[in-house]
Amino acid sequence: MKTLTFVGCGMMASALSIPAHDNGHKIRLVGTHIDKDIVKEGKKSQYHISLKRQLSHDTEFYYIEELEKALDGADAVICGVSSFGVDWFLEEVYPKINPEVPVLSVTKGMINNSDGSIITYPEYWMQKLEEKGIKREINAVGGPCTSYELADKHQSLVGYCGNRIEELKMFREIFGTDYYHISLSTDIRAVELSVALKNAYALAVSLSVGIAEVEEGKEGVNHYNPQAALFTQASREIGELLEVYNGDRNQLELGIGDLYVTIYGGRTRKIGTLLGRGISFDKAMETLKGVTLESVVIAKRMGESINKLGEDGKINPEHFPLLMHVYDLIANEKKVNIPWEKFNLDDFEN
Amino acid sequence: MKTLTFVGCGMMASALSIPAHDNGHKIRLVGTHIDKDIVKEGKKSQYHISLKRQLSHDTEFYYIEELEKALDGADAVICGVSSFGVDWFLEEVYPKINPEVPVLSVTKGMINNSDGSIITYPEYWMQKLEEKGIKREINAVGGPCTSYELADKHQSLVGYCGNRIEELKMFREIFGTDYYHISLSTDIRAVELSVALKNAYALAVSLSVGIAEVEEGKEGVNHYNPQAALFTQASREIGELLEVYNGDRNQLELGIGDLYVTIYGGRTRKIGTLLGRGISFDKAMETLKGVTLESVVIAKRMGESINKLGEDGKINPEHFPLLMHVYDLIANEKKVNIPWEKFNLDDFEN
Repeated sequence: MKTLTFVGCGMMASALSIPAHDNGHKIRLVGTHIDKDIVKEGKKSQYHISLKRQLSHDTEFYYIEELEKALDGADAVICGVSSFGVDWFLEEVYPKINPEVPVLSVTKGMINNSDGSIITYPEYWMQKLEEKGIKREINAVGGPCTSYELADKHQSLVGYCGNRIEELKMFREIFGTDYYHISLSTDIRAVELSVALKNAYALAVSLSVGIAEVEEGKEGVNHYNPQAALFTQASREIGELLEVYNGDRNQLELGIGDLYVTIYGGRTRKIGTLLGRGISFDKAMETLKGVTLESVVIAKRMGESINKLGEDGKINPEHFPLLMHVYDLIANEKKVNIPWEKFNLDDFEN
Repeated sequence: MKTLTFVGCGMMASALSIPAHDNGHKIRLVGTHIDKDIVKEGKKSQYHISLKRQLSHDTEFYYIEELEKALDGADAVICGVSSFGVDWFLEEVYPKINPEVPVLSVTKGMINNSDGSIITYPEYWMQKLEEKGIKREINAVGGPCTSYELADKHQSLVGYCGNRIEELKMFREIFGTDYYHISLSTDIRAVELSVALKNAYALAVSLSVGIAEVEEGKEGVNHYNPQAALFTQASREIGELLEVYNGDRNQLELGIGDLYVTIYGGRTRKIGTLLGRGISFDKAMETLKGVTLESVVIAKRMGESINKLGEDGKINPEHFPLLMHVYDLIANEKKVNIPWEKFNLDDFEN
């Protein structure tokens, strides 16, 4: 039995505690400042108010003020914050974790640097910590997995990535069950980029829903050819972007599986649909009450990176017409106008 | 203006005549023996009774007995039969077409040989014709495109493949419009195999619909994690199968886009759902009134090929657990039992 400390006890991290508990491990869930209400109820009844599921009665809840107590004796730590908590985790949590204790992060995303290069969160953390004199490995989770369905023990297939095969195997031991299946990869860049990109491309494919709605004059219609065309183009661009940013193109599949379900619903489909109807980004964000979406953040960062690399002659932004169109919708106040004619990617030079 | 003769005037070939007509070409639609009623009404009113769309009034319809007249003066011929007409087309039509006249085929599929190797229909035809002393090139269409939506001029993105770049470019000239977009590839094997495989894998992903229905005790529920898991695994296996059978793995995307929409509906989703509920293949086929599905044919042929190559030590069938499970359902009377634990494809050797 290992003691696992989850820092950040939102829906995903808390759902992930369930297979680990099933495997007999001791679970400690630490709420951040935004998780106070979760912890309050959790300490009382172990009912998780966001996940809306009863957790096991031996699950321990901690306020962030009790972090050191929760970390004491932990065999592994799980970083459970969203991308908006990345720098907070860097400053406030990582320095308090013994560098020998393995870490697994559920945070998905990437940052673009001013030179056009990008860095995924695990890489970013490792680099920043090294600058502080802390050498540590960070493993991360990628792949299609909604927290509700994991909590309900539906079959799920995800990817864990990290630099050390032994640590990855240990985390698979801890979390892998007959309903939660884990592939391992040492290509952090490819796994993380692939699952980050799916957010931007889910928005892109969803544009076709709004376009079809306008064409048919009613909501909720599907035009399959355009959706399939955008899905095909999205797959091509994700594959090529993995290569551009030095990831293994064959890690594409986790992102593709994730893309497939992200299009089905949720806020990313909603904003893609609104933009597809020809509504401006600002107006669409009003409808969503200004909630910042990861899909928007990723599309913006990727667009900036591609533009910069394009300016410097390192890549050809024309190879990514779909992503750059989404970028134009978000950053340059353009109206939807899918660049279909640019999707002709012949496999020979013309 | 070119004269285009379509032999076989089912829904797909007839829909494809629409962008060519929009580009100003002369259209001749020749019905096979099963298209007699289509031709009868078409000669009268140019209304297509299967496609349920009015074609342009200068579209010419021909009975198969008028084939030679319809081929006379044709600048290009479009093979419009389904996979069940492949040998008929080989014996009865190809020998009547001037070998200098370019051909484009909409027929999708492949055949497995007794040594475990496979051959796609364009390759099969070219080989068989060469044995008859006829040297001809055959180009083919792949990618996600339903005939109804093409007829309604929804945006579509497809791939044309063939050995001669100039012929491919000519066909793109003829058919490409601002709603029908064509990528070109000289990798016939990869394009055709990729779009054939999507049929088998659409059945595979649909299994999760039936499984979810049984778990929830009602129809029409979606469990996204299992669907995404099967979609991820399907993408991985399609990519690896392209490599095994000597196609370019990067043509994966057309098949993936096609897979994405095939899962949405139709008979392949239906049989996948039935098998997912634990119904035997024979009983499921009864429900479908014995209609032979391309997805079933492809899964059977691929399973036989993989088994044979496995027996001969050329490949490891364990790399394709999802396809082989579908094969077992269809060919070996197995009941559904997704081999989730075999989906852990680490990117390093254990």
